[in-house]
Amino acid sequence: MSAHETVEITGHLMDHGILSRVLDDIREYSGDYTIDRFDVGRETDDPSHAVITVTTDDNESLERLLMRLQTRGVNQVDPGEASVSAADVDGVFPDHFYSTTNLETRVRIDGVWLDVGNPEMDCGLILERDSAGRPHRVYTLPMSDVRAGMLVITGASGIRVTIPTPDRTAGAFGFMESEVSSEKPQAVLVRQVADGMREAKAEGKKVLWVAGPGVVHTGAAPAMVALVNAGYVDVVFAGNALATHDIESSLYGTSLGVDLAMGRGVEHGHEHHIRALNTIRKEGSIKAAVDSGVLTGGIMHALVTHEKEFVLVGSVRDDGPLPDVYTDVIEGQRAMRAGIADVGFCLMVATMLHSVATGNILPASIPLVCVDINPATVTKLADRGSSQARGIVTDVGLFLEQLAVELVPEYRRS
Amino acid sequence: MSAHETVEITGHLMDHGILSRVLDDIREYSGDYTIDRFDVGRETDDPSHAVITVTTDDNESLERLLMRLQTRGVNQVDPGEASVSAADVDGVFPDHFYSTTNLETRVRIDGVWLDVGNPEMDCGLILERDSAGRPHRVYTLPMSDVRAGMLVITGASGIRVTIPTPDRTAGAFGFMESEVSSEKPQAVLVRQVADGMREAKAEGKKVLWVAGPGVVHTGAAPAMVALVNAGYVDVVFAGNALATHDIESSLYGTSLGVDLAMGRGVEHGHEHHIRALNTIRKEGSIKAAVDSGVLTGGIMHALVTHEKEFVLVGSVRDDGPLPDVYTDVIEGQRAMRAGIADVGFCLMVATMLHSVATGNILPASIPLVCVDINPATVTKLADRGSSQARGIVTDVGLFLEQLAVELVPEYRRS
Amino acid sequence: MSAHETVEITGHLMDHGILSRVLDDIREYSGDYTIDRFDVGRETDDPSHAVITVTTDDNESLERLLMRLQTRGVNQVDPGEASVSAADVDGVFPDHFYSTTNLETRVRIDGVWLDVGNPEMDCGLILERDSAGRPHRVYTLPMSDVRAGMLVITGASGIRVTIPTPDRTAGAFGFMESEVSSEKPQAVLVRQVADGMREAKAEGKKVLWVAGPGVVHTGAAPAMVALVNAGYVDVVFAGNALATHDIESSLYGTSLGVDLAMGRGVEHGHEHHIRALNTIRKEGSIKAAVDSGVLTGGIMHALVTHEKEFVLVGSVRDDGPLPDVYTDVIEGQRAMRAGIADVGFCLMVATMLHSVATGNILPASIPLVCVDINPATVTKLADRGSSQARGIVTDVGLFLEQLAVELVPEYRRS
Amino acid sequence: MSAHETVEITGHLMDHGILSRVLDDIREYSGDYTIDRFDVGRETDDPSHAVITVTTDDNESLERLLMRLQTRGVNQVDPGEASVSAADVDGVFPDHFYSTTNLETRVRIDGVWLDVGNPEMDCGLILERDSAGRPHRVYTLPMSDVRAGMLVITGASGIRVTIPTPDRTAGAFGFMESEVSSEKPQAVLVRQVADGMREAKAEGKKVLWVAGPGVVHTGAAPAMVALVNAGYVDVVFAGNALATHDIESSLYGTSLGVDLAMGRGVEHGHEHHIRALNTIRKEGSIKAAVDSGVLTGGIMHALVTHEKEFVLVGSVRDDGPLPDVYTDVIEGQRAMRAGIADVGFCLMVATMLHSVATGNILPASIPLVCVDINPATVTKLADRGSSQARGIVTDVGLFLEQLAVELVPEYRRS
Repeated sequence: MSAHETVEITGHLMDHGILSRVLDDIREYSGDYTIDRFDVGRETDDPSHAVITVTTDDNESLERLLMRLQTRGVNQVDPGEASVSAADVDGVFPDHFYSTTNLETRVRIDGVWLDVGNPEMDCGLILERDSAGRPHRVYTLPMSDVRAGMLVITGASGIRVTIPTPDRTAGAFGFMESEVSSEKPQAVLVRQVADGMREAKAEGKKVLWVAGPGVVHTGAAPAMVALVNAGYVDVVFAGNALATHDIESSLYGTSLGVDLAMGRGVEHGHEHHIRALNTIRKEGSIKAAVDSGVLTGGIMHALVTHEKEFVLVGSVRDDGPLPDVYTDVIEGQRAMRAGIADVGFCLMVATMLHSVATGNILPASIPLVCVDINPATVTKLADRGSSQARGIVTDVGLFLEQLAVELVPEYRRS
Repeated sequence: MSAHETVEITGHLMDHGILSRVLDDIREYSGDYTIDRFDVGRETDDPSHAVITVTTDDNESLERLLMRLQTRGVNQVDPGEASVSAADVDGVFPDHFYSTTNLETRVRIDGVWLDVGNPEMDCGLILERDSAGRPHRVYTLPMSDVRAGMLVITGASGIRVTIPTPDRTAGAFGFMESEVSSEKPQAVLVRQVADGMREAKAEGKKVLWVAGPGVVHTGAAPAMVALVNAGYVDVVFAGNALATHDIESSLYGTSLGVDLAMGRGVEHGHEHHIRALNTIRKEGSIKAAVDSGVLTGGIMHALVTHEKEFVLVGSVRDDGPLPDVYTDVIEGQRAMRAGIADVGFCLMVATMLHSVATGNILPASIPLVCVDINPATVTKLADRGSSQARGIVTDVGLFLEQLAVELVPEYRRS
Repeated sequence: MSAHETVEITGHLMDHGILSRVLDDIREYSGDYTIDRFDVGRETDDPSHAVITVTTDDNESLERLLMRLQTRGVNQVDPGEASVSAADVDGVFPDHFYSTTNLETRVRIDGVWLDVGNPEMDCGLILERDSAGRPHRVYTLPMSDVRAGMLVITGASGIRVTIPTPDRTAGAFGFMESEVSSEKPQAVLVRQVADGMREAKAEGKKVLWVAGPGVVHTGAAPAMVALVNAGYVDVVFAGNALATHDIESSLYGTSLGVDLAMGRGVEHGHEHHIRALNTIRKEGSIKAAVDSGVLTGGIMHALVTHEKEFVLVGSVRDDGPLPDVYTDVIEGQRAMRAGIADVGFCLMVATMLHSVATGNILPASIPLVCVDINPATVTKLADRGSSQARGIVTDVGLFLEQLAVELVPEYRRS
Repeated sequence: MSAHETVEITGHLMDHGILSRVLDDIREYSGDYTIDRFDVGRETDDPSHAVITVTTDDNESLERLLMRLQTRGVNQVDPGEASVSAADVDGVFPDHFYSTTNLETRVRIDGVWLDVGNPEMDCGLILERDSAGRPHRVYTLPMSDVRAGMLVITGASGIRVTIPTPDRTAGAFGFMESEVSSEKPQAVLVRQVADGMREAKAEGKKVLWVAGPGVVHTGAAPAMVALVNAGYVDVVFAGNALATHDIESSLYGTSLGVDLAMGRGVEHGHEHHIRALNTIRKEGSIKAAVDSGVLTGGIMHALVTHEKEFVLVGSVRDDGPLPDVYTDVIEGQRAMRAGIADVGFCLMVATMLHSVATGNILPASIPLVCVDINPATVTKLADRGSSQARGIVTDVGLFLEQLAVELVPEYRRS
């Protein structure tokens, strides 16, 4: 009664450990495999191609394994046609719904291959048909947004997933692959992030920042303001804390220099914090506070002044919060999804929560760098599906300082 | 133009470093001080009493400093009468509102001292008058819940704050002070937590758990289930992740043993996760899934079966989420506030976000222990106002295993 | 002027990521490669075989790359004969000496393959000839022990290195591969370590412990004493600190319970420490102190009583040190090398320095588990050549407590 | 049968938490106390003075407690005369020997107060008499260096210890106390370290660096070389690893840039490491390798070229080691003691082992800054007696880069 299917994968399978992980997955899902064919790239730059027959105890296990393998870019040799079921209830996918990856995905419906426009992890795939009943488009949708009657792709058939070619990522942002000077790695890393941002801007793309309050605590706010002014910050995703600490610092000049020395943030205690929140709530919004002259400096002020977008999403630990904060996290996620359009480079600094949240919705094709002094944050990002994520364990304050020096010639330490 | 005020503090000022911190605060707020009187407790157990005149540049600084000092239990010698202003706008306190501590607080209105029933940090104090216009009660209210017309205490006058006496805390949970056997400190710590829970139950109080998904990852779910069954878990505060990982583990038997070995959780990748969410959403709620026989084991099942309360509050990184999750964090905070009634002991395990959120709303009088393998989480809690917080840096899985062995005689490793 | 060589490797190349790392190495050494042949194991358990031609700019680079690849188990297809040079000076190898791995190694001299008896990393290979001039044996020797006139193997020719087959390691200690119960991973890990020790004892092998002072600080000394008494501790490698803290604790009953609570050891300050050292120095040795009745309990006492071997090697931060401590680290390494004879299982607990030192000299064939609450220590061990290393990030005190309960039925928490 | 003694302490007792720790000590040693007198400094800058009677169960406990309290600067009101015993055996102090602090210490012998010239922790005090039998000098000596017949101070009588006045430390290096700009704390910290070094040089003192291999891994070697060239590095204490990695990097240009990105050092594996060691051993010493033109760059080359002193002390995990390394750790400690003469500022970067070792021998009066990306290293230093230690948790590479920019105008990132 065992079930089996033949799958294939193409790419730099060995030199990036992909095939190892594929075989690990098969074992983890209690499957067995036979490698039917393995055409190895002979030269350093040639891609390899593997054809593998996987076997499991029953069809259900097989289906789950096949969906799992697609997160690695492993597709069925004979993909067949995608199956579709209508959702019965709002917010619930049909059984056996296909769970998405953040990789480029195509779906075959009625013999036609359709591209999925907005790859995102852990969503369902929704099929829209045109008035003639022909497949019109397929897009990812999070579980909470599905509505009864929507057509949802089920099973793993009829789906092809493509892992990014290293060249392409390297073109945009070739961290590990590139020549790394033996002399000043930290300067090289700063320059590579700077280059990634310059390239994104040159291609007319946006630069997304995901930032935590550590940016303010480590004294990097002036550097970030300089980068906003110079046009290297197009969209900011953050929580209540970054914005509040930044505003508190502007309103009260609270010295948080001690934090850097001690390596940890003073959490509460400063009632300045709660007063800053009340002040902005009184104004009605951060923009209103800027317009009325109440808020005259800092990161949020710079964003408002340059009409840059920011999405602040709340968390259960928030005081206040600021009037601009989404207190409903699902609405916040929707705002973030809207915010990633046209993003060509993403820098995450000093935040675990919002970095993971952003990693959840970013397509794998967008270069992504995570900077934190805590290796756990960097590892957590890198562990996730995002093959494009690069981590830098360093001091956020010094890193942004150097990034500003690199990108903004007129920025100088005073 | 300088401003000054005379304040006093009573307690074990030196042996717990309180006075040091008071003087640090004064310096940090650019104030100056003269110690007018210092009656030191002669014997080991005698309290000390200090009278200090603080001076600042202007009245506004003085007021901010006085409010700051009250978070340490420092009160004005001549407290006077509290000032009251009506809120003009929903969600905004009047200027100069008094920002609360989590310590026992009394307010003098019209010559009468009123106790604040629910001490909580970073809130405002709302005055209710009876139909005759007499002061009826004073209570804490978070900024977002204030409504136009409510009477809000402003300034630091007319307010007295009391720091818990060490004896009292020690009675409930005397960690550091107690005799610690030289032989098995870890066993002693487990026993002290067990004693804290037993005492709370003996006094008819509830035991509150704040738990992260690490409880499931480290294999401690069976231990926690045993503790639920035995009545040592009355209320649980958690996020979507704990509940989902627990349910996923029950539905699919996903082995996460590798996590313990590697010291970090596998974040995503397991699409089981997203299927578990869909399954419960289809049922409508966790309770419905238990009632229908879909969910037959695990922590959430035990809580439902024993009709224990749980408050799940979402975050921006959530998938799904489960239908029971508050997606609006402010509503979630309100549910948590309601949940802490009658709590006599609080254990926080393996979560930074929800631990800090709970620390924000817990009165300082409730004994609180935070267990995490990451020293940063423990430090973060202890840094906060909560003088009652005790931190234990240890393996969550082994700790809960031993706690279950200690509290539930019939619990045995199988 | 480029140089090239054809190499091969056999084993489970993909499912453990070995081939990926081999290709990474080639790139890192600025080499190029052609995969001439790749016979992939068709079934799950079949080994694979790869033949690769590597090319570098010159002969010297090639030789360095070939030596590097041998650390992965990659050998020349046509190994040829080993070259030999005599050392000119004491303590210095000839140019181009072969730098060893900790894998099973064979060397071909005069057409005969000789096994290297004591594989150890980063050593040279010394050839002994018999009186007739025939190759007699080849053994590893650290650089500092080489003497002028010794015959040293140079270059990478004539050498074959074998990576351990997973089956074999699994037989002895199959951590990751084995079924891990979904319910209590931490109990499973404890049991696997216990099984590893039982197997080693059953085979007549010794159990080696490498231990840091954290064993004492976390209150695990009684558990370790129980394990010494029960015969599960044959050899201990440690520093001055473990022995001194253990002895201090026995002599003065110093309570270090606070450490566990705070997650870090109190380093100095207790002058008990320095007095304990003086007391044992006065006795002349730890054994003398046991014999004279001065030292009556603790780990060192148990080791002396049961005539178990311990090697204490000093470090620059030591006070005292104890008279038993090797103050010369090279002599200490020699004593450790002598101590690993007949070891069949190695447990490292709560020490970075001595764990790395032991990892340097242990053959890859000896199962090795590293337990520490700090992920960095565990990672550091696993990063090193030791493919056999398994890391467990957990609380040392609770882990040893459970290990004692598992292995010593009569051990109970009192 | 209880024993008691009256002690006193003068200084800024409350605002730096000193008195709290004194009372904690008394409790920890199971003592009891009565505060007889407490003259509190009325104004912010006035010192306080406390007179405390401590009581313990017996004389021995009292003596131990008194010695403990002296590490806090607490002295007997009536110190009396110091007692002296001759050592019986080499390397062993007499019973009841006085265990030293690293604070300024004076001893009264025959009615005369003698200054202890070289305060160091955890040593004994040796009395030298002149030919007429009069007390000539008192100096600290580590246990291992005491010889039979030497006169050793015993008990706590006749000894006065002085805690550094904050002003004095602040003069030399006023970290926490100084105004910290709210804008760029990290720049301020760099500048304060730079100022500390400039002041030491201006006073004709030496700057001591204690450095780990992370200096090389993070790419900071060029910055450190620039600082050596500019005269801001007079003495270096390190281990085999720093010197070997630096030399390996110079000889082979090994790129370790990956390390910074991954946040951890590649330990072994590079057989370049072992070859670099052999190369220098062949030359006979680092200096010989510089003289012969074999070593032409890097930190060690710069130190040799500028005739700066370095003390390399080995550890049990060393390969090689370099010929300049002290393999006997006690001899290494002696060399370090000799090396701290005339040191006026100490910077510790990226090493736990050698930092703690240096902390053991440095007088408390020498300003000391510890820089590490790992908070545990910084905390460990700060926990120790060294009240002068300041910790900075940051990226070592970026920190040294900025320090070089600050101190060496012509140093520029290329």
